[in-house]
Parts: sequence; C-alpha cells; structure tokens
Amino acid sequence: MDKVRKMERVAALTKILSDRPRYLFSLSHFSELFGAAKSTICEDITTIKETMSYFGLGTIETVAGAAGGVRFIPTVPASETDELLHELARRLAEPDRIIPGAFLYMSDLLFTPHLMAKVGEIFLERLAHLAPDYILTVETKGIPLAFMVARAFDLPLITVRRGSRVTEGSAVSINYVTGSSKRIQTMSLPKRALPAKARVLIMDDFMKAGGTARGMVDLVQEVGAEVAGIGVLVATAEPEHKLVDDYSALLILHDVDEHTKVTDIRPVLTTGEPSGNRK
Amino acid sequence: MDKVRKMERVAALTKILSDRPRYLFSLSHFSELFGAAKSTICEDITTIKETMSYFGLGTIETVAGAAGGVRFIPTVPASETDELLHELARRLAEPDRIIPGAFLYMSDLLFTPHLMAKVGEIFLERLAHLAPDYILTVETKGIPLAFMVARAFDLPLITVRRGSRVTEGSAVSINYVTGSSKRIQTMSLPKRALPAKARVLIMDDFMKAGGTARGMVDLVQEVGAEVAGIGVLVATAEPEHKLVDDYSALLILHDVDEHTKVTDIRPVLTTGEPSGNRK
Repeated sequence: MDKVRKMERVAALTKILSDRPRYLFSLSHFSELFGAAKSTICEDITTIKETMSYFGLGTIETVAGAAGGVRFIPTVPASETDELLHELARRLAEPDRIIPGAFLYMSDLLFTPHLMAKVGEIFLERLAHLAPDYILTVETKGIPLAFMVARAFDLPLITVRRGSRVTEGSAVSINYVTGSSKRIQTMSLPKRALPAKARVLIMDDFMKAGGTARGMVDLVQEVGAEVAGIGVLVATAEPEHKLVDDYSALLILHDVDEHTKVTDIRPVLTTGEPSGNRK
Repeated sequence: MDKVRKMERVAALTKILSDRPRYLFSLSHFSELFGAAKSTICEDITTIKETMSYFGLGTIETVAGAAGGVRFIPTVPASETDELLHELARRLAEPDRIIPGAFLYMSDLLFTPHLMAKVGEIFLERLAHLAPDYILTVETKGIPLAFMVARAFDLPLITVRRGSRVTEGSAVSINYVTGSSKRIQTMSLPKRALPAKARVLIMDDFMKAGGTARGMVDLVQEVGAEVAGIGVLVATAEPEHKLVDDYSALLILHDVDEHTKVTDIRPVLTTGEPSGNRK
C-alpha cells in the first residue's frame, strides 16, 4: 500500500477529521501524509463531505487562504436527537431512580461515555451560534457532560471548585446562595484558568432554581469574562423564573412523586416543543 | 446517492465504527443501513481494517457467530505515544506551573479534550489486558482523564465522592489516610454504582504516596468488587514504595525545585524505559 489509493485516503481522512471535531487541519498536512497533490485531497474531502451529509453524520467546512484548511463539524440528525432525548426521558423516569427528597439518581447516565458523546454533539448543534471560547462547569456530576460538550466544540473546559484547592494556585472566589435550599456556599476558580474578555458557555447537569448557575455567571463576570450562554441537561419546570435569565435544557422535569414513584420528565425536541411524557 | 457506493460505505463505516470504540456492531445493522449484502459489508470492513492498520489508527476485530459483528479498537503508534508523552513532560516542566508547596498546575492539560482523548487511547493500549468491567476515579481533576479512558474502553465510569452526597442515595464510605499529609479523609460511593464481583480499573491524575489510590482500592474491595489495576497520568519517583503495590504511570515526576523553578519529569515511553528529561 505504498501508493495510497483514494479508498484508503478517504477512510483515513474520515477517521482523522472526525477524531478531532472543529479542528482546522491544513491541506498540506494531508498532502504530505498521503503523498498526494492538494487537488487530490480536495476531491477526497468532497467525497467525504457528501457522504457525511448524506448519512447525517456531519459536515466539512473548508477555510480558504494560507491559514486555511478543512474541519469536521459533527451533526446529529433531528430524528436521532429526538430518539435519544426520548430514551433519556424514559430512563430518567424509572421508578428506582427516585431518591428520598425527590431527587433523581442520574450518575450512571452522566458517566456513560457514548451517551455523553452524543449529548455533547447535540449541544454543539443547538448552541454553536453562541460562539464560546471556553466551556465552564462546576464539580462534580456535570464534568463528563461539560467535557464532551468541550470535545464537540474543540474547546478547553474550566471546572469551578466548591471551596479552593491548594494545588491550583491563587483563586477567585465568590459566595452564592443555592436557590432551593437557601444555603450560602463558596465556589472558586484558579486565577490563571480563565482570561478576561473570554466568551464562556456555562454547562451543568441539573438546574432547579438556578442558584448554582447564577454563581457561575457571577464568577465569570468577576474575572472580567463574558457569559455566552447556559446549557443544562435537565431543568425543572418549577420554579418557572430561575435566578438566570436564559438557558437551554434538553429535558424538562415536571414532577417527581415519591409516593407513586411517577416521574414526569419531557424532552425538548428538535422542533422546540416539549413533548408529552413517554413512558 | 440512492445506491450507496463502496467509497461512501467505507467513509460512513469508518465514522460509525470509530465513533464508538470497542462496541460490537452487528453486520445486519450495516447491511440494512446501506442496503448491501453482508458479504459486501465484510469486504468494506477488510478495506477499512487494512487502512487503519497501515496508518496506525486502529484495528478492527471480527466476532463470528449469531451474536457476532465487528468493532473498532483504537491504537496509537508507539512513535505518536512517545511524542505526546514528551510533549506533556515538556509542558508540565514549564516554570510557571510550580505552585507554592511544590505542586504542579495541571488542570489546563487535564481539561483539554483532544489531549485526554489521546491519553485515554494510550491507557487502553497499555491496560486492555487487565480486562476491566468499570473504570473508577475520585473527584475532581482526574474525571476527564478517567472518562476518556472509559470512552476508549467503552465502559461506564464510576466517580467516588469525597464525603457523601444526598442526591446519590445510600452510599458505602471508608476513611483513608492521605499518604503525604497524613490527614484522615472520607470517600464514598453510591451503593448502586458498582456491582459486587465487577473488575475495576482505578484511574487518577496524580499519585504521590498512594493514599488516595489505597482508599479507592479499599472502597472497591468493601463492596465486594475486584481491582483489575491502577493507572495514573503522573506518579512521583519518591516515595519509591507507595501504599499500593502495582500501578501504571505515563509520566514520572522526579523533582520540583521551587527555588530554581526546574521540574524534572520524564515520560514512560513505549519501550518501557523512562527517558531523560527533555526540556
């Protein structure tokens, strides 16, 4: 296979491009790797682009000029997104997830790589227009979700700590009041983690009153950075007015009944209308 | 593109297989998706297998029989692994990473998706023989690393908490003594997270005396599960005898000199011999 044929180039290019979504690869890089002319690589890219688009697996963007190149943007077809959200709603409504205090056990789903990989791509699709420079979350359960969003965006993740850790150097801290239990808590961020003026997309696994999200907004503004938006996997329907103005949720939790073990949770489908609960 | 040609099938198959490493896809699934005979899909798979192998991007395993199918196993060529480990060592030796107390600031690297994706594949390559059922880590900084190891293995991640959280239900807790500072701490695991008899690969970002790893070993054994092995990104050279017997590290930290700002950290290369410090 010394002379690499088109078929092999297409397979290898597909793997390399999709391994690092949104990263701009130069055509010279591929030209050297395969010992082929740039025009040949361009034709290969066109083939891949058509195929990815046909199967709804992604798109390929071409950036012209000396600093240009090609990058892969993952997409999830609306039907697949909606199917996954229905599936998540169905699983989150399982009766044995209800924990005393009407909490829902979500950790098994939040720590399953292939689910969060897909959720990351769904958030990219819904929130790419916010054009963030960083993804930010607070420890602990939301980290894999936020990390897979960061992976889909090809951006670094910044993790806010509850309290301040000595191994991360000097930190900016704020106090915040949790929206539901009204307790005062501290969260902090290493000073070096986030440059001033950066645009930040805040991610979390769960939002009720929005106190934690409000804390992250305050912390971002405290270091002089800007909040590009907020994304959460599950938001509760009540209270309707949260401590943050605007957020995108993939699932809306309407009710958890500890007595009957019935959980009413509904996906926010691609059409934008929350559907009825499918159980 | 109603009739899908070989070139398009190869591109789409490459994307779908590599998107979910180690997951067994049935040939019938692909046969339906592309409207092609299984024998045709087999030929496509052979092409992809040869290409992935030629470029060192991975291998494809075929499992025969009714419950069989194909799966993609990511690989990283030795040269690429060693280059990445040298690069990580070089970056970790940057003088401004040294935090008072001779700690190293590692969070920016630990929270960069494309780096941890590659590190996850390196750990798969080095530790696949341990055949774990679960990956386990302790909050917070090691979570993305452990999650990308879980992604490469296609296994769920379990995250041990420091303290016990109400939103995860009843928990198993243990006390442990941190190896270096000799403080008594608590870590806990939701009871439902880990089945008895499961084989667990313990991951962490940093190991000094091994007290935290020891705590995770005790916790795994407390629930009746089995420790398959321990992997860490960075282990210190001293103390030589850790509180756990056996572990795999990708980098060995020999010295952090707060005065001269010189950090001596060396990659554990694919040959198995730690190299000299490259700065």
